[in-house]
Amino acid sequence: MSADPHEAPDPLTDDELAALDAHWRAANYLSVGQIYLMANPLLTEPLRPEHVKPRLLGHWGTSPGLNLVHTHLNRVIKARDLDALCVWGPGHGGPAVLANSWLEGTYTETYPDVTRDASGMARLFKQFSFPGGVPSHVAPETPGSIHEGGELGYSLSHAYGAAFDHPDLVVACVIGDGEAETGPLAASWHSNKFLDPVHDGAVLPVLHLNGYKIANPTVLARLPESELDALLRGYGHDPIHVTGDDPAAVHRAMARAMDTALDRIAAFQRAAREEGATERPAWPMIVLRTPKGWTGPVEVDGLPVEGTWRAHQVPMAAVRDNPDHLRELERWLRSYRPEELFDDRGAPRPAVMAAVPEGSRRLGATPYANGGLLLRELPLPPLETYAVPVGKPGATRHEPTRVLGDVLRDVMAATAERRDFRLVGPDETASNRLQAVYAASGKAWQERTLPVDEDLDPHGRVMEILSEHTCQGWLEGYLLTGRHGLFSCYEAFVHIVDSMVNQHIKWLRVTRRLPWRAPIASLNYLLTSHVWRQDHNGFSHQDPGFVDHILNKSPEAVRVYLPPDANTLLSVADHALRSRDYVNVVVAGKQPCFDWLSMEDAKAHCARGAGIWDWAGTEDGSREPDVVLACAGDVPTQEVLAAAQLLRQHLPDLTVRVVNVVDIARLLPSGEHPHGMSDFEYDGLFTPDKPVIFAYHGYPWLIHRLAYRRNGHQHLHVRGYKEIGTTTTPFDMVVGNDMDRYRLVMDVIDRVPGLVVRAAAVRQHMEDVRLRHHAHIREHGVDLPEVADWSWEG
Amino acid sequence: MSADPHEAPDPLTDDELAALDAHWRAANYLSVGQIYLMANPLLTEPLRPEHVKPRLLGHWGTSPGLNLVHTHLNRVIKARDLDALCVWGPGHGGPAVLANSWLEGTYTETYPDVTRDASGMARLFKQFSFPGGVPSHVAPETPGSIHEGGELGYSLSHAYGAAFDHPDLVVACVIGDGEAETGPLAASWHSNKFLDPVHDGAVLPVLHLNGYKIANPTVLARLPESELDALLRGYGHDPIHVTGDDPAAVHRAMARAMDTALDRIAAFQRAAREEGATERPAWPMIVLRTPKGWTGPVEVDGLPVEGTWRAHQVPMAAVRDNPDHLRELERWLRSYRPEELFDDRGAPRPAVMAAVPEGSRRLGATPYANGGLLLRELPLPPLETYAVPVGKPGATRHEPTRVLGDVLRDVMAATAERRDFRLVGPDETASNRLQAVYAASGKAWQERTLPVDEDLDPHGRVMEILSEHTCQGWLEGYLLTGRHGLFSCYEAFVHIVDSMVNQHIKWLRVTRRLPWRAPIASLNYLLTSHVWRQDHNGFSHQDPGFVDHILNKSPEAVRVYLPPDANTLLSVADHALRSRDYVNVVVAGKQPCFDWLSMEDAKAHCARGAGIWDWAGTEDGSREPDVVLACAGDVPTQEVLAAAQLLRQHLPDLTVRVVNVVDIARLLPSGEHPHGMSDFEYDGLFTPDKPVIFAYHGYPWLIHRLAYRRNGHQHLHVRGYKEIGTTTTPFDMVVGNDMDRYRLVMDVIDRVPGLVVRAAAVRQHMEDVRLRHHAHIREHGVDLPEVADWSWEG
Repeated sequence: MSADPHEAPDPLTDDELAALDAHWRAANYLSVGQIYLMANPLLTEPLRPEHVKPRLLGHWGTSPGLNLVHTHLNRVIKARDLDALCVWGPGHGGPAVLANSWLEGTYTETYPDVTRDASGMARLFKQFSFPGGVPSHVAPETPGSIHEGGELGYSLSHAYGAAFDHPDLVVACVIGDGEAETGPLAASWHSNKFLDPVHDGAVLPVLHLNGYKIANPTVLARLPESELDALLRGYGHDPIHVTGDDPAAVHRAMARAMDTALDRIAAFQRAAREEGATERPAWPMIVLRTPKGWTGPVEVDGLPVEGTWRAHQVPMAAVRDNPDHLRELERWLRSYRPEELFDDRGAPRPAVMAAVPEGSRRLGATPYANGGLLLRELPLPPLETYAVPVGKPGATRHEPTRVLGDVLRDVMAATAERRDFRLVGPDETASNRLQAVYAASGKAWQERTLPVDEDLDPHGRVMEILSEHTCQGWLEGYLLTGRHGLFSCYEAFVHIVDSMVNQHIKWLRVTRRLPWRAPIASLNYLLTSHVWRQDHNGFSHQDPGFVDHILNKSPEAVRVYLPPDANTLLSVADHALRSRDYVNVVVAGKQPCFDWLSMEDAKAHCARGAGIWDWAGTEDGSREPDVVLACAGDVPTQEVLAAAQLLRQHLPDLTVRVVNVVDIARLLPSGEHPHGMSDFEYDGLFTPDKPVIFAYHGYPWLIHRLAYRRNGHQHLHVRGYKEIGTTTTPFDMVVGNDMDRYRLVMDVIDRVPGLVVRAAAVRQHMEDVRLRHHAHIREHGVDLPEVADWSWEG
Repeated sequence: MSADPHEAPDPLTDDELAALDAHWRAANYLSVGQIYLMANPLLTEPLRPEHVKPRLLGHWGTSPGLNLVHTHLNRVIKARDLDALCVWGPGHGGPAVLANSWLEGTYTETYPDVTRDASGMARLFKQFSFPGGVPSHVAPETPGSIHEGGELGYSLSHAYGAAFDHPDLVVACVIGDGEAETGPLAASWHSNKFLDPVHDGAVLPVLHLNGYKIANPTVLARLPESELDALLRGYGHDPIHVTGDDPAAVHRAMARAMDTALDRIAAFQRAAREEGATERPAWPMIVLRTPKGWTGPVEVDGLPVEGTWRAHQVPMAAVRDNPDHLRELERWLRSYRPEELFDDRGAPRPAVMAAVPEGSRRLGATPYANGGLLLRELPLPPLETYAVPVGKPGATRHEPTRVLGDVLRDVMAATAERRDFRLVGPDETASNRLQAVYAASGKAWQERTLPVDEDLDPHGRVMEILSEHTCQGWLEGYLLTGRHGLFSCYEAFVHIVDSMVNQHIKWLRVTRRLPWRAPIASLNYLLTSHVWRQDHNGFSHQDPGFVDHILNKSPEAVRVYLPPDANTLLSVADHALRSRDYVNVVVAGKQPCFDWLSMEDAKAHCARGAGIWDWAGTEDGSREPDVVLACAGDVPTQEVLAAAQLLRQHLPDLTVRVVNVVDIARLLPSGEHPHGMSDFEYDGLFTPDKPVIFAYHGYPWLIHRLAYRRNGHQHLHVRGYKEIGTTTTPFDMVVGNDMDRYRLVMDVIDRVPGLVVRAAAVRQHMEDVRLRHHAHIREHGVDLPEVADWSWEG
């Protein structure tokens, strides 16, 4: 089914070819101008050093290729009235996408001071990579973009995320041959096994082989053509190769390739949608092989530049000081014949604009790239229907994530027609006990099935692939184009996407400041199968540090929740799914967990984010407590309540307060995070001067890092995970990390003034009990019933 | 060149087949035993509930496949006297590798209490995944392993790392079809473009398609065979397919496939080594397609198990309580006919051992898997030869990484014959200004070259691929098998390997406690192109949080250094390259940086890790300073020294101390980290009660997290990166994040008691100067000379 596009009839008249070339030259001219010029944009006078920026920054090498793709996308969008979006993987080519946006008018519509004339062109040039101006990459500030390509690897998964559940959309995706070497990109080729030709749009990958990275040839560009072709067919694509360095020939080949690809896409979609075809299509893709820095200087200072890695950034760096470089720059700029491209006012001439689409069909203006415009409220059901009944705290147990699964099932059902909610995860939806969702939607799957398979569905909206990178990329693309979703993941392995979530948070930090960017649904993580319950996977599966990573990022965009039971998980999840422009991290267990709060109490507690559980303590209101037992996380909460019970039993005259923290950023000062609490509130919860024994789900020093400015910080003692783990029992884990109930009681005794002497016998008893448990576990391999299935008697 | 192994002549006699099958059955029996039994290991009596463990943990599904591969590797190792190592990607299959290790005797040699008899077998069974016993995965504790497969994705890059510069070694690598979906694994297939058939060993990938992950079919197992074959050929391999579920037929096909693969490897190596062949070979690989949980229960409770995802972990979970399950378990165990496999004492019978190799040829005993045994001291040259001369601090400037490049060049040259040092990086060696190394070794490259290429070398030991994952995996494999190396990386994008380095640190934490594991060379990161100097890449390239991530991990295995100039970088790098069993993170700039310390002073300063720079302050020894200016990192050091200069000029009667911290863990209490300093030392540097203005390279709260227990912590004020960045000038970056010299002077004025009134005019002047700089940068796009190229006048 492969076609040699050179054999097909010529798709372009000479006039059409001339117009495409004019547009491409205009975009190239504007790209070079952005990198170099701060004045004399139309070269109305000879170029002088003071027209050139003092700092030359930007990436020329990829720009002509991006301009070529944009020019040809314009043509097919206009010719076919296509709903299209483009993900620009080589995001370093900011000048190219900005040039096209300015040409088509969307830049001026978005930023009215950058007019489509000579003065606006001067502004466009000067602001590029200039302090206080615009970034050098395709960025949140760039109209039409959903993808900052500075960190390479995520373009294709973003493109698929955008295409899911947008049946009328074609998402072109330019993949650089450098980016193609990354792991996330390499994994994401298989996304086509999850693309439903009926309900999803199409993705058209354009693998751009310009041959070089910063300083090296690329792996894919140097493969024998047959090997590359086999690889792409192995990925499930039917590649169309476009190769050349003669502009006219490449224009013709590219036009043919685009037509062929879009015809095939349309045929596959028609077959699936109208004729009931179920076979996975061999979707087309384009392999575009053109020189790096094409049309730029062939040589600089006697060294080859065009077609080499030397064209990666700024081909000539000494333009202000070296008259030869200045002359060469002027020659280069004039080689695009700007006088043919722009009129005297500096506006693009009609010939340049002939193939540019109009209105929201323009790539810079598509609402898909400003997904908040398309976003609808998620139909979330009332939580009361799903809440577990709690008469008395700690009388029953539930698996929190399983309870949440029922809510997710009904959200999935309520969006069956709208198709704007997806659940992603690396083969863990059932392991994380969310499998109730399968009653409303199966798992997306376009490969063949066997009778033994369960819950696979070619039209499913639960997405499972054993690649956290691909899950993250899909979800980001889905959210950025105006939909909702949740990523459920083993807690330890979410670190795999540390760097991806960095970029998403950076994106949100910038878009929150851009009034034209409509808010999008938050990226919601459910981290489960957590550090304390890796009974059979052990040390490699134990790492609670994602929270630390997230809390390093922009406070306005990050939220972290540690609900201690099923109903609090429901409340937190509901809040997260309704929110906008955040990354919400929810850490919750999948193992049976005591139910502490009724739905009503859970909502109130989660709204406060932290609060005193007076039913758990022994305060009578007559005086300050002797000690505060604080907790955040389900296992720490259990151990703290068990410690409170032990204290009530063994030291009945001690006044104990129990504080639970759900929203961990509450511990920060109010000036540091929007959820931070005032010192007055903090003192009201934790007291200004009493010992606080804090059992925390993760690394203990995180609590200190959040609370170091607080009153009484010197009395704050935190227990948590100290990187001690293996395959063992649940109780052995808390013992090993000194967070067990007996240890917490000992901590209280050690830190409440005067108690260490008075309660010496109790302390010794606690130590003895710990040792007894330890010995039992080592001999029998299981926890004693009194910790495995204890009952709360508060 | 592909072969159908079913067509080749039968490589096995009936006796050989029987022996292989006996070994495989024995390993399967021992695998099941480990998952289920705590007594009655030889089934000498009928199975009773109390023989079964109370907690059933482990992964059966992958184990029979791993046992098959191990059995057949044994055969070819013995038959060919092969030097072999195996990387077990499906590391969850711990029972399989442990079973084989016990059978071949290496387990007992490593752990003498687990004897090769019935009592040892009982111990082997009980300890598995038992508290205080051994982990359920292939782990550091497992003889013969260099790879904990709990976090999937890294097996193939580890295998290549092990093979580099080990010309006589064959590294088999079992890749699960689950793991194959991950990004890191997908990227690492292209490692064969970097494998030198002359100086490197061979990698034999065995892609094991058992069809299922935890709960889903796998992508690769469901591809049409032609598509899978195209994919693997596209990866550059010549695949040999072995498919079946009849043991005898699979044994024959597998033996043929192994022979064919090893013959081809030998032929390629001979051609390259003896005949000068330079074409990249199409290396063989094996695609093994057998049922998940093969030979286990076909059905449990009426549901299919063998050959489905239900076989992933423990096929029957209720054995103690459900008599049917107990009976089925006994039937299953007896199906392997243990009486044929083990003698009355419980030792493996000779037939089982017929194809097992001896001595260090055994996979569990190979020294390659205990790389410290092979490690030689790295020939590091004396630093004095490379040191930059420093008469007076701050009189000259150098690019620190470029200076280090000269050292690395000479280490590369000194290891030209030994070939036990490699430099890895994602296309950034030259960008990071280490290109001097190319004088001693080019960049590894096996694809075709063009005249324009520079420094590519089929035998090179500089490794560049645009995949941080692959770089990390290669280096880990290289170090774990007894060599040395350095990973140079853009600071922001090292987060891409957060999760990989987690696993390596966990590995080191465990191996440091295993006396039989010899120490290996440390994993050294040089993080450069750092947060403060992303002039043209901007916000997406700015993230200093890797240090925070690393400092969450086991203190005994992590070290973080921030050398402030060229000579301190030399000293720190020298120390890191000589060290063992650490992860060393060195953060250093590539931009011109003032030279502060002579080589002698640099060594002394780095040995202390933190110290007072008395030449930079204004103390005369007569009294405590009024304020301490502390710094860690090159840019912070520059700004602090500039601030000290401003203070000397504007507030000459203020007594200022300057403290520089190189080794950031020095700030931790001595009980928390081996490098932590005592409170006495801390007070000696920072004073117990004076204001400390600390300019830190990364997120400022990290310093608080390290120092919160210190005296005077309430007077510690930290400036650092606050996630405010874009493409801008170097000085605009420090201004934007409030770490510039003027801001630091204002901080001093605000915090030294009484100064705010007395120095109000100075404070206002500083504010005015900041604003003047800001305005200049926004108008002209460059820094004023007084900050871009100032001179130190202390």
